[in-house]
Amino acid sequence: MLMTADAYRESLRSLSPRVFIDGEAVASVADEPRLAPGINAVGITYDYAHRPEHAAIMTARQSTSGALVNRMTHIDEGAADLLDKLEAVRLVCRASGCAQRYLAHDVLNGLYQATHRADATHGTDYHQRFLSWMHAVQDRDLALGIAMTDAKGDRSKRPGRQTRRDVYVHIAERRPDGIVLRGTKAIVTGAPYMHEFVVLPCRTHTAEDADFAVCCAVPVDAPGVTIVARPAGRPGEAAAKFSATYGQTTAVVIFDDVFVPHDRIFLAGEHEEAGFLTTAYATHHRHTCIGARAGFGDLLIGAGALMIEANGLDPDRHGHIRDAMVDLITITEGFYACGVAASTYCTQDPVGSVTPDVVFSNIGKLLLATKIYDMHRLAHQVSGGLIVALPGPDEDHNPETHASLAAVLGGRDDIPAAQRLAVSRLIEDLTVSHQAGWYSVISLHGGGSPEAMKREIWRHYPVREKADLVQTLLDRGVLDDTRPGSRQPGRCCARGCTEPQRLADAAE
Amino acid sequence: MLMTADAYRESLRSLSPRVFIDGEAVASVADEPRLAPGINAVGITYDYAHRPEHAAIMTARQSTSGALVNRMTHIDEGAADLLDKLEAVRLVCRASGCAQRYLAHDVLNGLYQATHRADATHGTDYHQRFLSWMHAVQDRDLALGIAMTDAKGDRSKRPGRQTRRDVYVHIAERRPDGIVLRGTKAIVTGAPYMHEFVVLPCRTHTAEDADFAVCCAVPVDAPGVTIVARPAGRPGEAAAKFSATYGQTTAVVIFDDVFVPHDRIFLAGEHEEAGFLTTAYATHHRHTCIGARAGFGDLLIGAGALMIEANGLDPDRHGHIRDAMVDLITITEGFYACGVAASTYCTQDPVGSVTPDVVFSNIGKLLLATKIYDMHRLAHQVSGGLIVALPGPDEDHNPETHASLAAVLGGRDDIPAAQRLAVSRLIEDLTVSHQAGWYSVISLHGGGSPEAMKREIWRHYPVREKADLVQTLLDRGVLDDTRPGSRQPGRCCARGCTEPQRLADAAE
Amino acid sequence: MLMTADAYRESLRSLSPRVFIDGEAVASVADEPRLAPGINAVGITYDYAHRPEHAAIMTARQSTSGALVNRMTHIDEGAADLLDKLEAVRLVCRASGCAQRYLAHDVLNGLYQATHRADATHGTDYHQRFLSWMHAVQDRDLALGIAMTDAKGDRSKRPGRQTRRDVYVHIAERRPDGIVLRGTKAIVTGAPYMHEFVVLPCRTHTAEDADFAVCCAVPVDAPGVTIVARPAGRPGEAAAKFSATYGQTTAVVIFDDVFVPHDRIFLAGEHEEAGFLTTAYATHHRHTCIGARAGFGDLLIGAGALMIEANGLDPDRHGHIRDAMVDLITITEGFYACGVAASTYCTQDPVGSVTPDVVFSNIGKLLLATKIYDMHRLAHQVSGGLIVALPGPDEDHNPETHASLAAVLGGRDDIPAAQRLAVSRLIEDLTVSHQAGWYSVISLHGGGSPEAMKREIWRHYPVREKADLVQTLLDRGVLDDTRPGSRQPGRCCARGCTEPQRLADAAE
Amino acid sequence: MLMTADAYRESLRSLSPRVFIDGEAVASVADEPRLAPGINAVGITYDYAHRPEHAAIMTARQSTSGALVNRMTHIDEGAADLLDKLEAVRLVCRASGCAQRYLAHDVLNGLYQATHRADATHGTDYHQRFLSWMHAVQDRDLALGIAMTDAKGDRSKRPGRQTRRDVYVHIAERRPDGIVLRGTKAIVTGAPYMHEFVVLPCRTHTAEDADFAVCCAVPVDAPGVTIVARPAGRPGEAAAKFSATYGQTTAVVIFDDVFVPHDRIFLAGEHEEAGFLTTAYATHHRHTCIGARAGFGDLLIGAGALMIEANGLDPDRHGHIRDAMVDLITITEGFYACGVAASTYCTQDPVGSVTPDVVFSNIGKLLLATKIYDMHRLAHQVSGGLIVALPGPDEDHNPETHASLAAVLGGRDDIPAAQRLAVSRLIEDLTVSHQAGWYSVISLHGGGSPEAMKREIWRHYPVREKADLVQTLLDRGVLDDTRPGSRQPGRCCARGCTEPQRLADAAE
Repeated sequence: MLMTADAYRESLRSLSPRVFIDGEAVASVADEPRLAPGINAVGITYDYAHRPEHAAIMTARQSTSGALVNRMTHIDEGAADLLDKLEAVRLVCRASGCAQRYLAHDVLNGLYQATHRADATHGTDYHQRFLSWMHAVQDRDLALGIAMTDAKGDRSKRPGRQTRRDVYVHIAERRPDGIVLRGTKAIVTGAPYMHEFVVLPCRTHTAEDADFAVCCAVPVDAPGVTIVARPAGRPGEAAAKFSATYGQTTAVVIFDDVFVPHDRIFLAGEHEEAGFLTTAYATHHRHTCIGARAGFGDLLIGAGALMIEANGLDPDRHGHIRDAMVDLITITEGFYACGVAASTYCTQDPVGSVTPDVVFSNIGKLLLATKIYDMHRLAHQVSGGLIVALPGPDEDHNPETHASLAAVLGGRDDIPAAQRLAVSRLIEDLTVSHQAGWYSVISLHGGGSPEAMKREIWRHYPVREKADLVQTLLDRGVLDDTRPGSRQPGRCCARGCTEPQRLADAAE
Repeated sequence: MLMTADAYRESLRSLSPRVFIDGEAVASVADEPRLAPGINAVGITYDYAHRPEHAAIMTARQSTSGALVNRMTHIDEGAADLLDKLEAVRLVCRASGCAQRYLAHDVLNGLYQATHRADATHGTDYHQRFLSWMHAVQDRDLALGIAMTDAKGDRSKRPGRQTRRDVYVHIAERRPDGIVLRGTKAIVTGAPYMHEFVVLPCRTHTAEDADFAVCCAVPVDAPGVTIVARPAGRPGEAAAKFSATYGQTTAVVIFDDVFVPHDRIFLAGEHEEAGFLTTAYATHHRHTCIGARAGFGDLLIGAGALMIEANGLDPDRHGHIRDAMVDLITITEGFYACGVAASTYCTQDPVGSVTPDVVFSNIGKLLLATKIYDMHRLAHQVSGGLIVALPGPDEDHNPETHASLAAVLGGRDDIPAAQRLAVSRLIEDLTVSHQAGWYSVISLHGGGSPEAMKREIWRHYPVREKADLVQTLLDRGVLDDTRPGSRQPGRCCARGCTEPQRLADAAE
Repeated sequence: MLMTADAYRESLRSLSPRVFIDGEAVASVADEPRLAPGINAVGITYDYAHRPEHAAIMTARQSTSGALVNRMTHIDEGAADLLDKLEAVRLVCRASGCAQRYLAHDVLNGLYQATHRADATHGTDYHQRFLSWMHAVQDRDLALGIAMTDAKGDRSKRPGRQTRRDVYVHIAERRPDGIVLRGTKAIVTGAPYMHEFVVLPCRTHTAEDADFAVCCAVPVDAPGVTIVARPAGRPGEAAAKFSATYGQTTAVVIFDDVFVPHDRIFLAGEHEEAGFLTTAYATHHRHTCIGARAGFGDLLIGAGALMIEANGLDPDRHGHIRDAMVDLITITEGFYACGVAASTYCTQDPVGSVTPDVVFSNIGKLLLATKIYDMHRLAHQVSGGLIVALPGPDEDHNPETHASLAAVLGGRDDIPAAQRLAVSRLIEDLTVSHQAGWYSVISLHGGGSPEAMKREIWRHYPVREKADLVQTLLDRGVLDDTRPGSRQPGRCCARGCTEPQRLADAAE
Repeated sequence: MLMTADAYRESLRSLSPRVFIDGEAVASVADEPRLAPGINAVGITYDYAHRPEHAAIMTARQSTSGALVNRMTHIDEGAADLLDKLEAVRLVCRASGCAQRYLAHDVLNGLYQATHRADATHGTDYHQRFLSWMHAVQDRDLALGIAMTDAKGDRSKRPGRQTRRDVYVHIAERRPDGIVLRGTKAIVTGAPYMHEFVVLPCRTHTAEDADFAVCCAVPVDAPGVTIVARPAGRPGEAAAKFSATYGQTTAVVIFDDVFVPHDRIFLAGEHEEAGFLTTAYATHHRHTCIGARAGFGDLLIGAGALMIEANGLDPDRHGHIRDAMVDLITITEGFYACGVAASTYCTQDPVGSVTPDVVFSNIGKLLLATKIYDMHRLAHQVSGGLIVALPGPDEDHNPETHASLAAVLGGRDDIPAAQRLAVSRLIEDLTVSHQAGWYSVISLHGGGSPEAMKREIWRHYPVREKADLVQTLLDRGVLDDTRPGSRQPGRCCARGCTEPQRLADAAE
């Protein structure tokens, strides 16, 4: 059953999480103005699944159950699924800034693969357990929060060596019917208005830190859970045309001896598979981020174009303005292309689902992480300094100044001054406000820091194969590459995916 | 008489400008909380002039009067003055974020040169008029607002062709005893808490637009002046440790038939000299901006270092952290070096004062304008995602969460969690908040857009001389450059300045 | 019939083009040492089509004839074809530096579309004429040179306004049985060792310049054709391990009243369709360039890895070395991803063949064009200064120095010094020699300058659609994007291509 | 006695070094065509000292002897000296590409300081010994080669742990009258046509590797010295208008038990002072490199301007051409500014001479090292693809093609085609040839790799002071920086140098 945004908001009333914002307890998440923008943004993912024009990419058929599910909770089975997900995420993020719920997709896909792997090695039954839970999540169309980033304490020490053990979430006790969870996750996106949390490790752990290698599902209102959140977006700010409507909260989530029953535990000490889960999730998530930030790019490109127009400038005559717009497009589509390539060259996991290519996914995320700052700069270049000098919207109703300002703050004659001011304030909201800073930092560090991406690229790139290519040249005196297995020609996901499909297509 | 910050604040009470913020009239600028951060920041320029350790660079002897004046109102007479100004501006900006008052220096130096030039051509007496007024400004130690950026209307049309003539400030009427000023300046930094405005054109004008080529001084509370301002910084925001104390306002300033008497008029239709003034001011100002933003760089470098330390990271062991810090330093000192070079290779104006080298000044400003975005990125890279996830300061006093959070949000054991949170919030304030966006946009567009800088660089660079160098090579078949006058060897300001001084020094 | 490299070389003997190199006439192209590296490089495209492991991507079935053809002469019919071409080009270029023959593919695909379009508008029979000729080219497995870049003369004037009309190739005379061609093409890659030239315009032309809008096929040894070529690669240079074997020539080709019979004329004055051809060819070619330069990237990555190893450095321990390698990978795969995305989001032409997405293709080419300089820098960073200091190979046989040098110029003990020297010389060959400079300039300007790419990106990007997206937000007060047709969700080539295929796949 | 270029060339005949090029012994360096470009380039430094218009910066008064010396051998005594050196080096390098001899300046200044320091610690008499030798070098106006970069062997091991000890130059034996030197220096610029080598360590050494901490002067023809050199520039290549005249060789120099008498030994085991020498030399040299590469930038800027002109393009109308030129200027003057700032903020060594500021010097070198690749790119952007497609100069005399080519390869009508071709070939020579690659690699690695610069910047930057600045803010709640000693305000070289000079100047 696919919920609407309204149904989703209503469904939050059945939960009673312990939430604080700015030192105050939140009585009802669904009715809290400071969280409304976050709920609106997630709501987009629900409503768009009902729109005929978007249904094809916003929904998918889950093969393990046969159910039609929201794309945000679907397991990818081929390159087409990955492309659809990328487009769906771009779609909902250009409507909401950041729709947050795609994180559910990323963790479900990671767990689908990791639980299968754990069972194969340890003879456990995690995969079946996970499937049952996942089908319920899909059927109830839930929103899931990802509790991954631990508080970490001293960055130079491993979890087991921290003075305060609670800086990492861990298994505090193992009981016959489940485990007791303790510790703190420092950055949980959208926490208050999620239905459940998926807890997973934020790093690889050694055998001696096995108790930190835990993955499970926890309802947001499970006893012992406390959520300390920030306001989502810029609720109530008159100047925040966009961010007062759509926003995102992040929260610290404290697990104070939270009991988790067996059927919600997906890993509990299998540190190697937990490490696999961490990177599998990261790959899915970095790929997804590409779609999200491309949607943000769409907003900037569109707003920039409107501003240029209102200023009376013509990009075809003002080369430096066109140049800045082309740079903005090049950045946005340049990292989006990495997402497309990662989809096209996906690999198939033993469990049958697919993973976007690790190298392309990490490159795309690395590019967006560092270039979002350039995106802000370019938006500023085409919009001019007005965006930080324009008097606030309260001034619009000041009878002593309004007429004078309206008379002079317009640009091109045939475009109302009000339009110019509205665009200016939107660009300010998207690129100058606290919300703008949030987009930057979350692009940079969300899903791992640039250094983490670089290490993954290095770890997965077939450098040896390229070295062999050149070694062959040196050995023979001339280059004569006879070996297959090179990245380009022979590269494909193993079975049933990209390459065979494409070759079949070519042979028609 | 050099005022203190307290005296400066007190002096504002003697003025009664018509000021609006967020639609409300401001009764007393000196007592308005929303303007306090701006007044505090300007106040730094007053107080530092009294500190023994800073007096040498914060004050100077004005040769035309013999008076000891604040560096922010001094006329530069040599390379040493320019270096001192650069250091003084860096000093007050690293203490205040942006101390704003250096704009006075820039316009005084521009006018000192432009009025002299106008007199030489037109036989007018502007220079003497200006000197009298300037000496009074210096003696009374005033703060000056720069009313330069017109509202502009349709960017594709010249002033005289605008549908609404008031989008540019202009002479509406010439009277025997002065002129009547009309029009709107769109971005005036620090407007409400200045003593006077200097009005000057923001672009070159043609002869037919001569009435737009006007420069004069206007008290902030002259009849007909209306100031529509934004709050300065982030007054009253608990999370804004820095920007609640120090900030900057920008304002739209409306001149509604403001009468300006003769002794305050410095140009009134001399469009060529007004064009000269515009670029002379721009050169001084771009040079000054370099010092200002280097001060901002100092804050980021220092805050980054504290954050790294609190996180338990060691740059000597974590190469990517050191790399980011070195990048931050390289950017900051890289553009600062352009300011130093512009000082060293200054040129002497016919009136006797000096202008920093135009090419180096514009390159320095161009670099800081585009690279401030990278500075934010680098600060984020070394600080981690905490800066946007940390619960706000109101949470610090929540008895239900405070103990738990304090226990887990610390980093290195020997550094209090409170220190880590304080640094984190400072970086957020400087790089994620609305104030952070303001620093970016004002760096990009303040003193002219990047395109304006590029045009100035092109206009002033001795390209022909380099082409001649290469042409000589082509003509002779070998390179044998005998001509002097090249940028390097013969380059100096004409008389009494850099080169002779240096050569004399070398010959000792 | 698919030729081998040997057969290709032999086939050149049946032609007798008028060729000059360094002022000397070339008697036999097939036997000319200065052209051998070029012939070797093209030969790779022939030999690889016969290798079982490469046949799947190096050959394709031409649907209009049913024949199995070399991928370098195939008409693309779907996304899979474009991906295969990209991989095939990368494969042959990493074996040869630049295999040149892919240009044939690009022009054939452009003509396939343009001739169809001309016929539809003008009722001509160009398409059928072209098909007959193309099938012959495919059947005989010919190599085609692209004669596109005119000499141009004064860049500020249109062709018809040039003092010397011959700076652009044009129809000098129209005869009943064909046309007479005059003028000069300034940069024709691989000219001497091609079988035929395809002449096409390098820019759009106006109606009054219709005689310049000409496209036709001309045998390299047609009467009136003169080829003035450079040596291909670095033939005979002992230090050029790679470029003495594989290289590329470029030539000026003079058409001195060359008669072209009707069946080889594909456009003759239809200036609008000629303009379409120019950009269609450019799109195909820019897409292909992406594969070519990715192959060059493979060589640099492999050589860098070997050099690091020989120096005794471990990228896992020396972060800055790993960082440089990751940058090199990120650049190479970053632009390659644009090629993949352009394939995936190809569009179908009315004639049935496909065109890679214009925006992604141009972004990919723009990135490789500007970043190849960074690729050289990174290769230098990881290899050290030895590559320009190592004594030349003649020194290797000097009995007075050889033993001493061999004893000290090695790196890691277990790697022979000779290996280190060989890798060092290869990197020098690829990044320091004249050949290296050629790769840079041809990457920058081949297929159009960066400015040309930027204009194409701007011209084709759906900016209006993004502006509408944002306008909708401003109009409603909240963003609620209901319109389809956005780049992402609805975007696909019209029939039989990416989107439907993917959706069908997803719906299974 | 200041030699002329002719006298310098003649002086080389009195030496008989053992030199090999391409496997052949060189009979007379002065008469060897393959070395002539190198000798010509060094010759510029001699001739320019005699030109009246350059004498002021090309010569200086050595205070320890009272002699007038060539700037390339002078000890710097103040900021003015450093600025003069910078200008002098830029001057001779824009005339010669790279005049090489400035290396002498760098090592003399390093030794002047290091020997003084060693004596102060160890009670040795190195400084006096060095002074005697230096005065002789100055009086005889010698050219000095810097033998610094060891062969290094396995980069992961210290010298004493290498399998082959000779990969680092070291003291093989200590005798009563001197030392015996063994080992190999891998990259010695201009080796064959120098008068003497200064041997110094290329890295810091530990106490156990003390025998590697050796510094001394060795005549190029001392028994046991073998020089294996590359040709300097592109001697004899017709297309190399510039590099056939001016060029640079690098050589491997083998020290096979070379005896060095006491009066030429400047350090012999004092590993700490040797480490100081290495970095002192590096600082002087990196500062000097800035001038050298700015001269190269001048050549590119001039050549680019001529090419644009010949093509008929007007930068004022073609924004992207102007933009590329401005970028080229911004890069060149941007790093040059760092050299100026390093001069202005020099520090005084205890011995009385000055050192350019370490941070600014390293930033300047870091910028030029990485951005020279962009300089090449920009030169290519403005010149177009012709530079790699133009037939070679031998074609100019081919009667069968010359007239046709001359008719079409011109650009603007009023500029002879020959001029366009000459400019094109010059740009090719400077940016596409092997020589161009040499400029790149030597810019990147000469004077230390980018990583070495970064480490120096980090080591010397007052990060702690910036952290204290911010800590003060956090401690007080408001920023109130009372401490002096910050980089800007109080920063100066300790005594008698920049700051006091400037203040005195300002107070006049």
